[in-house]
Amino acid sequence: MSPATNGLSTQVDAPKPSKYDPNFTQHVIDTMGPNVTPRNRVVLSAFIRHLHDFTREVELTIEEWLAAVQFVNDVGKIYSESGKTRNESHRLSDILGLETLVDEIAHKIISDTDVDPTSSAILGPFWSPNAPFRENGGTIIQDPNPDGKVCLMHGIISDLVTGKPIPGAVFDIWQASANGKYDFQDPENQTPNNLRGKFRADENGKYWFYCYRPTAYSLPRDGPSFQLLQMLDRHPMRPAHIHIMVTHPEYKGCTTQLYPKDDPWLATDTVFAVKDDLVVDFKPLKGDDKAILELDYNVILAPKDYKGKDF
Amino acid sequence: MSPATNGLSTQVDAPKPSKYDPNFTQHVIDTMGPNVTPRNRVVLSAFIRHLHDFTREVELTIEEWLAAVQFVNDVGKIYSESGKTRNESHRLSDILGLETLVDEIAHKIISDTDVDPTSSAILGPFWSPNAPFRENGGTIIQDPNPDGKVCLMHGIISDLVTGKPIPGAVFDIWQASANGKYDFQDPENQTPNNLRGKFRADENGKYWFYCYRPTAYSLPRDGPSFQLLQMLDRHPMRPAHIHIMVTHPEYKGCTTQLYPKDDPWLATDTVFAVKDDLVVDFKPLKGDDKAILELDYNVILAPKDYKGKDF
Repeated sequence: MSPATNGLSTQVDAPKPSKYDPNFTQHVIDTMGPNVTPRNRVVLSAFIRHLHDFTREVELTIEEWLAAVQFVNDVGKIYSESGKTRNESHRLSDILGLETLVDEIAHKIISDTDVDPTSSAILGPFWSPNAPFRENGGTIIQDPNPDGKVCLMHGIISDLVTGKPIPGAVFDIWQASANGKYDFQDPENQTPNNLRGKFRADENGKYWFYCYRPTAYSLPRDGPSFQLLQMLDRHPMRPAHIHIMVTHPEYKGCTTQLYPKDDPWLATDTVFAVKDDLVVDFKPLKGDDKAILELDYNVILAPKDYKGKDF
Repeated sequence: MSPATNGLSTQVDAPKPSKYDPNFTQHVIDTMGPNVTPRNRVVLSAFIRHLHDFTREVELTIEEWLAAVQFVNDVGKIYSESGKTRNESHRLSDILGLETLVDEIAHKIISDTDVDPTSSAILGPFWSPNAPFRENGGTIIQDPNPDGKVCLMHGIISDLVTGKPIPGAVFDIWQASANGKYDFQDPENQTPNNLRGKFRADENGKYWFYCYRPTAYSLPRDGPSFQLLQMLDRHPMRPAHIHIMVTHPEYKGCTTQLYPKDDPWLATDTVFAVKDDLVVDFKPLKGDDKAILELDYNVILAPKDYKGKDF
């Protein structure tokens, strides 16, 4: 017996009466012409709807709207005035969790077994396409920093489905120096590609090289993103991390970050990029005169055609 | 008999299973510290929620997100590089209907009688606080344009509740010249405050002066806002309009725009600012050697403490 036949109707809340024009948002959407691509129609309609719903929901004031207009202009001003080296819009989307969300949507793979592929995390603004290939056993430290703690990092890159190693997989690493700055940001102390390098896994899927134990750093404490962080009463700290991007033509690539397990900013990372399987243990290393620490980290990649659990 | 006692439960759709972390958005919101102002907490929480919901709803891709990041940087770049004279972020919010929505939220007055106050419309980016006071009967045309059609504009400013005139009310008008450009945009042809002026209503609430019949114009056809209009397959035209801002210390001010009834862009105004009571009739004028057209437009203001219909 359905509610429709027993005289009871499903209870539906009547829409709250509003003094605002109920047709306005649809009118704005409907001004789109016939030549909009199907994907743009979906994305832009949803964007307009959410923008308007947000605005009505909070009854945004003229002053708040004008502050937002000025904020957007200021975001682009920083990019423009820095000679495009400081991407404040990218940073802004990071502190709002947007890059992490987009990364999850693009890269989340739900395994259909009890083995999971290595989690993805955001690319961030500091990756470079120009990092040089280096030999396994080499170092990415071109310009030593006296506070840097050298670490022998090594591991095996393997296949999610077969468990077998993936020879030839490329392990691309980049990290800030012990002063918390990347080469781009620190030309006085760092030459280009300091603390960057690509390594090719050997016939056993192994990679190994020297890097630094990473150092936590603050996002810049000037500019509109930091203003927003202050408005949100949030700190601007990223936990210490090493960026890696692991690729092979036959596998889904994995771009991610690794975090020391004792970092105080793990739970409140200002860009929300920490996941459990990315928290690692740097251990003391004996008998290697080049390093005082060791990090053993294995990466698991899903084959390119891997579907995983269906949703 | 309630559904709970007759064994039928109210049907509620189960949330669609999602492969995305259901706690992520709340986590981002919860990183706000204790010192956020109550209003900022409401506005920023809602903004983050809508931003994330939009992103998941359309499954925004990395490429789309990066295009949006670049778009925001480009918006601010225009502002920065134009010496802050071209507010592209303001224009962007206009073509998304945001300024019209914020204006409605701030200024909509629902009358509790069958007389309505004059509708509000957006301020736009061209108002100037420096417009000079001029005498009734004067002109705002400092720099005549050969294509300009001179119009005697006049009317009465009156009280919504009593119907009585409001002596001393200030009628501030600004408009583009017959080439579709405001003084700010056209320093070669226009001196500062051309086609701008403030008039004080006389003891009968009357104002009168000479201006132009307005000319439709296009938003700039370069820059990110125009790119977005092209993506939306929309034209960049504003219907011809005269801007007015009518104020008096004892009344709610009215900022609005007036549109000729035969303008072809009324239904698809690129900034969505047209309302029925703002569409006006320019009539031929005989016997005045200064003007060939006449516009009679009365303005009705609500007293400052007027509440209107309750919602």
